[in-house]
Amino acid sequence: MRTRPLKVALLGCGVVGSEVARIMTTHADDLAARIGAPVELAGVAVRRPSKVREGIDPSLVTTDATALVKRGDIDVVVEVIGGIEPARTLITTAFEHGASVVSANKALLAQDGAALHAAAGEHGRDLYYEAAVAGAIPLIRPLRESLAGDKVNRVLGIVNGTTNFILDKMDSTGAGYQEALDEATALGYAEADPTADVEGFDAAAKAAILAGIAFHTRVRLDDVYREGMTEVTAADFRSAKEMGCTIKLLAICERSADGTSVTARVHPAMIPLTHPLASVRGAYNAVFVESDAAGQLMFYGPGAGGSPTASAVLGDLVAVCRNRLSGATGPGESAYADLTVSPMGQVVTRYHISLDVADKPGVLAQVATVFAEHGVSIDTVRQQGKDGEASLVVVTHRASDASLSGTVEALRKLDTVRGVASIMRVEGE
Amino acid sequence: MRTRPLKVALLGCGVVGSEVARIMTTHADDLAARIGAPVELAGVAVRRPSKVREGIDPSLVTTDATALVKRGDIDVVVEVIGGIEPARTLITTAFEHGASVVSANKALLAQDGAALHAAAGEHGRDLYYEAAVAGAIPLIRPLRESLAGDKVNRVLGIVNGTTNFILDKMDSTGAGYQEALDEATALGYAEADPTADVEGFDAAAKAAILAGIAFHTRVRLDDVYREGMTEVTAADFRSAKEMGCTIKLLAICERSADGTSVTARVHPAMIPLTHPLASVRGAYNAVFVESDAAGQLMFYGPGAGGSPTASAVLGDLVAVCRNRLSGATGPGESAYADLTVSPMGQVVTRYHISLDVADKPGVLAQVATVFAEHGVSIDTVRQQGKDGEASLVVVTHRASDASLSGTVEALRKLDTVRGVASIMRVEGE
Repeated sequence: MRTRPLKVALLGCGVVGSEVARIMTTHADDLAARIGAPVELAGVAVRRPSKVREGIDPSLVTTDATALVKRGDIDVVVEVIGGIEPARTLITTAFEHGASVVSANKALLAQDGAALHAAAGEHGRDLYYEAAVAGAIPLIRPLRESLAGDKVNRVLGIVNGTTNFILDKMDSTGAGYQEALDEATALGYAEADPTADVEGFDAAAKAAILAGIAFHTRVRLDDVYREGMTEVTAADFRSAKEMGCTIKLLAICERSADGTSVTARVHPAMIPLTHPLASVRGAYNAVFVESDAAGQLMFYGPGAGGSPTASAVLGDLVAVCRNRLSGATGPGESAYADLTVSPMGQVVTRYHISLDVADKPGVLAQVATVFAEHGVSIDTVRQQGKDGEASLVVVTHRASDASLSGTVEALRKLDTVRGVASIMRVEGE
Repeated sequence: MRTRPLKVALLGCGVVGSEVARIMTTHADDLAARIGAPVELAGVAVRRPSKVREGIDPSLVTTDATALVKRGDIDVVVEVIGGIEPARTLITTAFEHGASVVSANKALLAQDGAALHAAAGEHGRDLYYEAAVAGAIPLIRPLRESLAGDKVNRVLGIVNGTTNFILDKMDSTGAGYQEALDEATALGYAEADPTADVEGFDAAAKAAILAGIAFHTRVRLDDVYREGMTEVTAADFRSAKEMGCTIKLLAICERSADGTSVTARVHPAMIPLTHPLASVRGAYNAVFVESDAAGQLMFYGPGAGGSPTASAVLGDLVAVCRNRLSGATGPGESAYADLTVSPMGQVVTRYHISLDVADKPGVLAQVATVFAEHGVSIDTVRQQGKDGEASLVVVTHRASDASLSGTVEALRKLDTVRGVASIMRVEGE
């Protein structure tokens, strides 16, 4: 074993960073044996240097992250600051000064992954980011290495623990969105400002990263259709139950039937209770991967939290350190397939639509005609009347999102349709 | 991209080998793009050269596998023959002549993994074998790379599809073992001689491989306690249901509570219906991994079959080819921890024991005394009497296997105990 240690700079020492530092210390011998050389924490960049950080030598702490990544003797920079800047500049600077980078930064990778990979490649360095998607669950490595000889057709998953906690709570207790969110906040599962989670921004970033790797095609954050779950109601869950379904916020990356284009989207959807994703409880994450040869694979585990995210970071750290020692680099960006990324309108799926309608003869015929005119075939209709008002619940066969949108627009213009109570996609069948 | 192709020799062209060859041809462009150089099938060693093999150039087919691996221009040997010899000699010869090896051979890896790794290391070559455990499910790579910075404490899984199919059938239909086996055979899920599967030999080989990687310790096939599932009865399933459980053939690799020793075992066990492994149906496989930092992870997918196994082989082929191009090698054997591998007697778990007893006063007291004398604490007892005969169902708290064995031996000597109808371990709680 080499005795001269590999030097690691840690950018950020919050929930994840402090756990990375702790494990680097407590498991130093194991890490050294697995890497083939000791690893040494050479510096820790923080915003608040006065905060006491148990187990971290205060002389390593600095507020000057830029100087740390420019030192020139750093082998690996671990970036767990999050956000776009200063993380982006620090990572680029790290490559320029000879370091490889392990990052947990989904927002940055989703937005600037291509440029960061290019910078890594230019300097012959590694960029690893298993922790950016689904915490501890090995997903990036299986997709870009284990399935490298296969053709992935679909990635379908629960990649945000906060929203899964809220939806699970609504499902199991009948609570409304706000009530379930309040509980998630009280228990620390939701942040004070939950926008990034509940509006699907976090899941959309992960979907962009997963789609890019799965399809060997650049998928930008802007390419991902995004719909949050703040408008999911207790009534939607009751409708889902009548269908033998539950509701999950899903990230779905799909190759088109002809194989030439892909789509990526995040939205709430009904999935059958028999689908393995339906039983993913609380803040857990799970991702289904469907490929030509392997068939259906599922990866399940804790999608967030300091320790699980640190596990993923450290797995990458070991890999990057091994690469340093052998003088090689791991797989970089693979975007050779360069498939068309299609807009949401071209997604084909099934829909569950609840309409408030006038309770009089001929309404169903009118509504059915509108669906037919837009080429959307109806699977089932259920009609419930009360006091001159009625509701129609329509479940369609597979149709394009554009056709469905056209249908709904036309339905809203009918005098007999008082309102469209909800539209929910049905997935995983 | 390099234009000179990497040369691949395929040993074996059965269900898996023919699928590997087919995908290498149909996905040649994708593989080239992902590797950075084309891959070329340079030779295929078979036993029956006269058999027509669609899509394979007959001029590549040979019966002389030894000459093929000795050619000297082969970059990667893919071994999908199975069994110990001639596979072992061919792989060793391949390393000696400069090739890296991708193998799907669980029996060989479990028996001679250390020697094969040593041979690979001596010649600076790779030995990859994702396909040897749980077919297409990425498991070897996550364990030896993704979790390389973590401390794995437990691997618990369904790693044999044949036995899971049989047990699932018994569970869902109430069928007995023989009836379910007959159906599995008729449907092609069980081989004509099902011994390797139903007696747990196949699962034990996988357990040895998984334990070795998970605990960075050499675990030999002989170290794995093995109990088949041929004696599981319909009555056991009824008992399991009363406990809110089902029965699965599990491979369990565990670190002891004090961290200094490990155990590996394969046996049927009751697991709660709420455990994710309980809902693994048919011939699917699933493996739970518990580690310090990551917590609980689960990997699920098809555990066998030509295409899924080929997916795993090709993922390894891409990795090994990338390593060839960069001049590096991937992680080799990691056995530095060198923990003690303890025998079955030291395993600690819970037990479900059914006893046929005389239906008279004092029997329960006698039986309870025997448990107490052996230090096995009883959780629940259920007593059912009929016509002078009665049955006692005892569920214990956690106890060592040695204590339980001593208890059972003593119980058999009691006049009032007519027989021990079944002993089943209870896991996953």
